[in-house]
Amino acid sequence: MNQHDTNHALQSLNSLLGNRFTTDDAIRDAHARDASYHRGALPVAVAFPNSNTEVAEIVKICAKHRMPLVPYGTGTGVEGAVIASEGALSVSLKNMDSILHVSESDRDATVQAGVTRLKLNTHLADIGTKLHFPVDPGADASLGGMAATRASGTSAVAYGTMQDNTLNLTVVTATGKIMHTGSRARKSAAGYDLTRLFIGSEGTLGIITEVTLKLTRLPEAVAAAVCAFPTINDAVNTVISLLENGIRLARIELLDELQMDAVNKYAGLNCKVAPTLFFEFHGSSQAVAESSKAAGVVASKHGGADFHWATEEAERKRLWQARYDSYYAACNLRPGSVGYVTDVCVPISQLAKCIAKTKALLETSDMVATLLGHVGDGNFHVVFPLEPNNRDEIAKAQNLSRQIVDIALDMNGTCTGEHGIGIGKREALAKEHSDAINLMRDIKNTLDPGNIMNPGKIFNL
Amino acid sequence: MNQHDTNHALQSLNSLLGNRFTTDDAIRDAHARDASYHRGALPVAVAFPNSNTEVAEIVKICAKHRMPLVPYGTGTGVEGAVIASEGALSVSLKNMDSILHVSESDRDATVQAGVTRLKLNTHLADIGTKLHFPVDPGADASLGGMAATRASGTSAVAYGTMQDNTLNLTVVTATGKIMHTGSRARKSAAGYDLTRLFIGSEGTLGIITEVTLKLTRLPEAVAAAVCAFPTINDAVNTVISLLENGIRLARIELLDELQMDAVNKYAGLNCKVAPTLFFEFHGSSQAVAESSKAAGVVASKHGGADFHWATEEAERKRLWQARYDSYYAACNLRPGSVGYVTDVCVPISQLAKCIAKTKALLETSDMVATLLGHVGDGNFHVVFPLEPNNRDEIAKAQNLSRQIVDIALDMNGTCTGEHGIGIGKREALAKEHSDAINLMRDIKNTLDPGNIMNPGKIFNL
Repeated sequence: MNQHDTNHALQSLNSLLGNRFTTDDAIRDAHARDASYHRGALPVAVAFPNSNTEVAEIVKICAKHRMPLVPYGTGTGVEGAVIASEGALSVSLKNMDSILHVSESDRDATVQAGVTRLKLNTHLADIGTKLHFPVDPGADASLGGMAATRASGTSAVAYGTMQDNTLNLTVVTATGKIMHTGSRARKSAAGYDLTRLFIGSEGTLGIITEVTLKLTRLPEAVAAAVCAFPTINDAVNTVISLLENGIRLARIELLDELQMDAVNKYAGLNCKVAPTLFFEFHGSSQAVAESSKAAGVVASKHGGADFHWATEEAERKRLWQARYDSYYAACNLRPGSVGYVTDVCVPISQLAKCIAKTKALLETSDMVATLLGHVGDGNFHVVFPLEPNNRDEIAKAQNLSRQIVDIALDMNGTCTGEHGIGIGKREALAKEHSDAINLMRDIKNTLDPGNIMNPGKIFNL
Repeated sequence: MNQHDTNHALQSLNSLLGNRFTTDDAIRDAHARDASYHRGALPVAVAFPNSNTEVAEIVKICAKHRMPLVPYGTGTGVEGAVIASEGALSVSLKNMDSILHVSESDRDATVQAGVTRLKLNTHLADIGTKLHFPVDPGADASLGGMAATRASGTSAVAYGTMQDNTLNLTVVTATGKIMHTGSRARKSAAGYDLTRLFIGSEGTLGIITEVTLKLTRLPEAVAAAVCAFPTINDAVNTVISLLENGIRLARIELLDELQMDAVNKYAGLNCKVAPTLFFEFHGSSQAVAESSKAAGVVASKHGGADFHWATEEAERKRLWQARYDSYYAACNLRPGSVGYVTDVCVPISQLAKCIAKTKALLETSDMVATLLGHVGDGNFHVVFPLEPNNRDEIAKAQNLSRQIVDIALDMNGTCTGEHGIGIGKREALAKEHSDAINLMRDIKNTLDPGNIMNPGKIFNL
């Protein structure tokens, strides 16, 4: 696009949005970054629409003037999916934060895309329901952003991912049409599954403006525990055995010894510095008691020791907060650093081998690196605390990340379990889906022939 | 296509497949129909490929000579998705019935598309696993066909649909490329979700040749019961209350009084002729005992009487066989008839109202009609036993079906919960997704520009 086009687009956007449209440098700069080391171009401006109609009008203006758009939620992603590209408008969904509908009988809720998961869960408690939205990526991300990223997190082993918990989306297409992808029915066989096509599309096919989610009953009882193991292999084999025996796990997280050391220091815990599993059980009091007991027996068979129960809610929350803060704890190992996080997922039978190969690889480098994972799903991360702007360290981390992806792909795994592609995993996606990526590109070209919807993300065209 | 093209295509197919290619009239006729009243054209021939490569070669021959292809599984669908169109080749996946891989640790299996669900479950028992594939549409359908239809059935309330239980597909595209849509990882955020784009695409985007499925542990204990209610409303409110209270149901099926009468007659049961719920509970012995007891209490609050438990496996199987045979039982009300089955799904809060409106509508007609449903999902069917080839009766059933769809759509529901679109619901789909259907058509045109993959199904282009 040329300057003439840009100026016309900015004038029209200004008329449409007034003071909910800005070219302020600090605000533009905030929309050039996410939670990672990735940095984008400064967006030409940032828009803060209030409604589906305003989003549609914005898209029409951008389409007319060939100005790219980048949807922006809470900026908690880590693969650069929401950072601006050259000449792009950043469209923040922040103002679209209304909870539109909650049905207790249907156990569903419809929210605007900017509503965060904690806001929804607080609301569900405030209005007296016994329901919650269980998908939990750690960060208090927006539900639209979570849908766009196909997010999951610690609770996916029990409750599934955004893919499993979304009934319907409102989407603004590349031509500015407002469209519904599904219905409020719990299931449907009506035509192509556009809901799941847009989930994980990272804003490249359209902008998600509303999300209808399945809700789940709050568990009657919750129990949490940590348990240290002699080796990571023992910890992983414990998880495999628990799953094979049908023991219901609400969360099952692995932290390696360095990550435990980091967590101890950051959160003031006093856990053993060893490969450790964090457990959480949900259910009736009786079911939780049974599962906890069974888990203890299985863990001890695999050398699990110091099985430490958090029975009080405060202690349980403190323990899990320590887990949630793992990323910051890892960065705290090198004060002033920013984390580079990898993300692969393999069949669980391959997990111990994949982690062993990854650890062996990390030992060949001089990088500080912690390892943690949602092991019930076969999903794990390596966190490299990097000096910001140290290109050499970033290049080393990228190189190691590429090799970890190769290890996972060799084991029938995927290059990303939950962080998405953004700009950081484009090469990895092309490797994983060498036979399907052209079909993905064809879909992108069909739905967005002008390539204005978050161009350059997922793949370069 | 012209006769010249057809002849060339048939010659090439004959060279490729030898005696696994036929123009026999009886075989062609069998591939012009499914389990419903729908009748297609006679396919020009029927091919029985053995491998992905052969399917790819068939597609290439068809693409070259512009011959349409219709994939055919077990023919147990009811909306005409697999019946042939004019000049089409029917591609039976019957020979592709190998179970390729089972992993107990990963709880997954990879099968060729022609493997039926009972064959897989028998195999899983034979090799000594305690796993099963839980999606259960009643008929012993092929797993490729179930994926293509986005099938579900009686167990979806507990275990989900094909959408929730499929990890990966092998697909032959319209250009004859063999492609994988996913991996064996339990979750992935790697690019567009092609797995779920092909699930429910009814052969219009490509031919599914292999399916990787999530498996589930067999329950330790199973309990079943039937319970009659004064009104359908009471039965539906019982289900809503059970779900709100988090009582785990493995199956929960509603049969109206006429359907119960039909079932009694057909299966030699002696149940009360009243709106009835069929219950099944899965879990540990203790969990099943608790859920069963709790369900009994809730049911009695809603006027449920004659709570009849089937504790012996033989009795339980007999009871559920009676439920599975409901379609045949309904047809048996008019000997020699064939069933016309409707299929809508609404949010469960709307289910009682939707059923009441449907029953009121049926009372305005002179048609025999039974009603039954997977009420835990808000999904129900009306079965009209019709005189075969009675165009007047078919027209009446179609007209009533259209009105039932309108009732469901008015309540934020869908025109099909599980049977798909085929040719029977094309108009309904256009009504339900008036704003999204053009996008679906665009995807079809992009993936199959020659319109050779099951043309005329889902929509006319």
